[in-house]
Amino acid sequence: MPESNDHSSSLAAVLDRSQELFDEIRAKTFDGVGVTRAAYGPGEQLAHDIVAREARALGLDIRVDAALNLHMTLPGADRQKPALLIGSHLDSVPQGGNFDGLAGVLAGLACVAALRADGVVPARDVTVLALRSEENAWFAAQHVGSRAALGLLGGALDSARRIDTRRSLADHMSEAGADLAPLRAGRPLIDLDRVAAYLELHIEQGPVLDGEAIPVGVVTGIRGNVRCREIVCRGEPGHSGVVPRTMRRDAVMATAELIGRMEALWEEIERDGGDLVLTFGQVSTDPAAHGVTNIPGLVTACFDARSHSDAVLDRIAAALTATAAEIAARRGVAFAFSPMTRDPPIAMDAGLQARLAAAATALGIPHTRIASGAGHDAGDFAAAGIPAAMLFVRNQNGSHNPHEAMRFADFSDAVRLLESCVRGFDAGS
Amino acid sequence: MPESNDHSSSLAAVLDRSQELFDEIRAKTFDGVGVTRAAYGPGEQLAHDIVAREARALGLDIRVDAALNLHMTLPGADRQKPALLIGSHLDSVPQGGNFDGLAGVLAGLACVAALRADGVVPARDVTVLALRSEENAWFAAQHVGSRAALGLLGGALDSARRIDTRRSLADHMSEAGADLAPLRAGRPLIDLDRVAAYLELHIEQGPVLDGEAIPVGVVTGIRGNVRCREIVCRGEPGHSGVVPRTMRRDAVMATAELIGRMEALWEEIERDGGDLVLTFGQVSTDPAAHGVTNIPGLVTACFDARSHSDAVLDRIAAALTATAAEIAARRGVAFAFSPMTRDPPIAMDAGLQARLAAAATALGIPHTRIASGAGHDAGDFAAAGIPAAMLFVRNQNGSHNPHEAMRFADFSDAVRLLESCVRGFDAGS
Repeated sequence: MPESNDHSSSLAAVLDRSQELFDEIRAKTFDGVGVTRAAYGPGEQLAHDIVAREARALGLDIRVDAALNLHMTLPGADRQKPALLIGSHLDSVPQGGNFDGLAGVLAGLACVAALRADGVVPARDVTVLALRSEENAWFAAQHVGSRAALGLLGGALDSARRIDTRRSLADHMSEAGADLAPLRAGRPLIDLDRVAAYLELHIEQGPVLDGEAIPVGVVTGIRGNVRCREIVCRGEPGHSGVVPRTMRRDAVMATAELIGRMEALWEEIERDGGDLVLTFGQVSTDPAAHGVTNIPGLVTACFDARSHSDAVLDRIAAALTATAAEIAARRGVAFAFSPMTRDPPIAMDAGLQARLAAAATALGIPHTRIASGAGHDAGDFAAAGIPAAMLFVRNQNGSHNPHEAMRFADFSDAVRLLESCVRGFDAGS
Repeated sequence: MPESNDHSSSLAAVLDRSQELFDEIRAKTFDGVGVTRAAYGPGEQLAHDIVAREARALGLDIRVDAALNLHMTLPGADRQKPALLIGSHLDSVPQGGNFDGLAGVLAGLACVAALRADGVVPARDVTVLALRSEENAWFAAQHVGSRAALGLLGGALDSARRIDTRRSLADHMSEAGADLAPLRAGRPLIDLDRVAAYLELHIEQGPVLDGEAIPVGVVTGIRGNVRCREIVCRGEPGHSGVVPRTMRRDAVMATAELIGRMEALWEEIERDGGDLVLTFGQVSTDPAAHGVTNIPGLVTACFDARSHSDAVLDRIAAALTATAAEIAARRGVAFAFSPMTRDPPIAMDAGLQARLAAAATALGIPHTRIASGAGHDAGDFAAAGIPAAMLFVRNQNGSHNPHEAMRFADFSDAVRLLESCVRGFDAGS
């Protein structure tokens, strides 16, 4: 029998096993509405236990690091060669979907299981990484597991508190069994010089692939953002019947103009080919003072813009304050901005993108390039200088909600693609 | 000595007395921040008691009607002739200013006191009316005293509840000593066939006169309004990083466009000479769901437009729903409107306006014509078919707040003008 047939039949069996693991983990972390796998809490631990059990059954080398990330390694022919990492996270938001994070870990396991089933010894170690605490729904810190692995967790240990318990990340990690000393010392938990690449499969959290009827996306990069948590527009309250237009200092009209003009700039930037999304996630008059016959004197709002391009983020941040200043001067209102935060865009490795795209073409899997709007563990590895790439799997019904969906056929295509890349990783080198 | 000198010296003494009454009523209803004269509550009653005491001292005929309005009459030569009413209200909003309402009642008292001091017996009765419960800050019903006097209070007795106590208007009125039977029967408390005119002096509640440096305005009419207490825009919530612009159904962007387009229409109507003010007094995302990384799926707002012109109100009401429908179709959101309410514009009597303007010119008092944006008791008298007119006195620092201001010199000018009109009311007839 030709090898390609062997390969696809072993992958088919492996994918059946993936389906069983998805079902088992969903059933055991179902909360009545969706799944809940609290970071450093029981749901996440349960998923880690099941994944570790599976890795043991596959005969993988297992290591749990100081941050309780789970490293499951299929040893390579040359164990000194930098390893190939395939990772994602096992926590979920409260009442979340089953696939966000879990799909990437099970995809990694499926890849090494398929190699194992075919008796393939890879040229280098292939390590499946089940990372901890990626979601910021639990702690006010994102990507705790990957940042800890990279020696970058820093002050978040004590400053980040769980939203419900108000206890620190350090408390919850200690309680779960983590060893805080190396984390406080900022010591990486993996040998950064011995990592060749980080690959991550993840459901797309937006509707783009589904809208374009394409099952798989090769991620070009993770958008950076500029963000302002509080914009306050102060005008002058007044009686809605008695103040003429030109004498008003209406905070709602001023804020509506700011929103409209930022939206117009967004369209302009897109027409010019720039990548951007832009959101005023909150807009509120003062509940103590607003009313149908009151000219609103106060509006609070917040702002989030994301782009693949630093230049676009520069332009948006400058336009937000300049437009507000122009509106303020003309309308006699004042805008105050809380300090603007900024995360730079992170590019995925061009070579790895090309490999993934080529493999998809070779396998006949429809695919496209896509930017990630949300942050992912892969971004932290890339920012640390490790070549990183992501595959997105099309997802129905959005993200961070119990209706999140992923067709198993799409997952299977993406795993086929990922496995082909892992299998061929050293072919061209 | 010529009569004009007598006249101005008696008016000067009368105005000194007005100043004392302003000061006494302010001191006795001061709440630590502004004045509070709750409708059918202790502050309003206190003002009524002081005004009644003054009327007794002036030898006026005093009557308290079933709604507890106070009628203070200087008898005319022919008591069968329809009377001239000079009225306003004595309640205030909570933490309000001292002049809103009170100025009109004290102006009326000053006029009859000046006639009395000069020994003038007017051709007809001149009745100063201290009306009850004009402000809608207390009950969800406006102009209770004047509507009761006109036999038009109707169902508000039981449906209107005081905002803080939640007890009905009927309860509070009974407790204060009102006789509800004639009010329930809709029987007017004044003989509508025996009223020649209703005159009201009131502070302007907006900044127009002050902006134009004109002390007195002759009111042309009271704006009508179209009002929607609740506009709900429903879009689709989502992750701010991952949904492209063209796939969003952002309720904030949609609402901001609606506000901006209504403002643009406002400017267009004004350019065409139309009278209009327009306010979205509340705009709020959902506090349970909004946040810096969330595409807002829900916005609630309210809307108030006022105009002197029924045609403009027609145009605005139609534009609001048509614009919303167009935006909804294009953006994939839905707008829902609570039932829109409408009050028609009310014109002040042209003949009375002309008399007031002519008197101002004769006295050398700078004046202008001005539309009233807010409702006033005069509007109810006019709507009931009684020739009505209003004088506005320029006011600094807006209305319905403790900083409301009125220069006593401006009040004096307006009283001189009003007194001149009362004195000359039967001269030309």
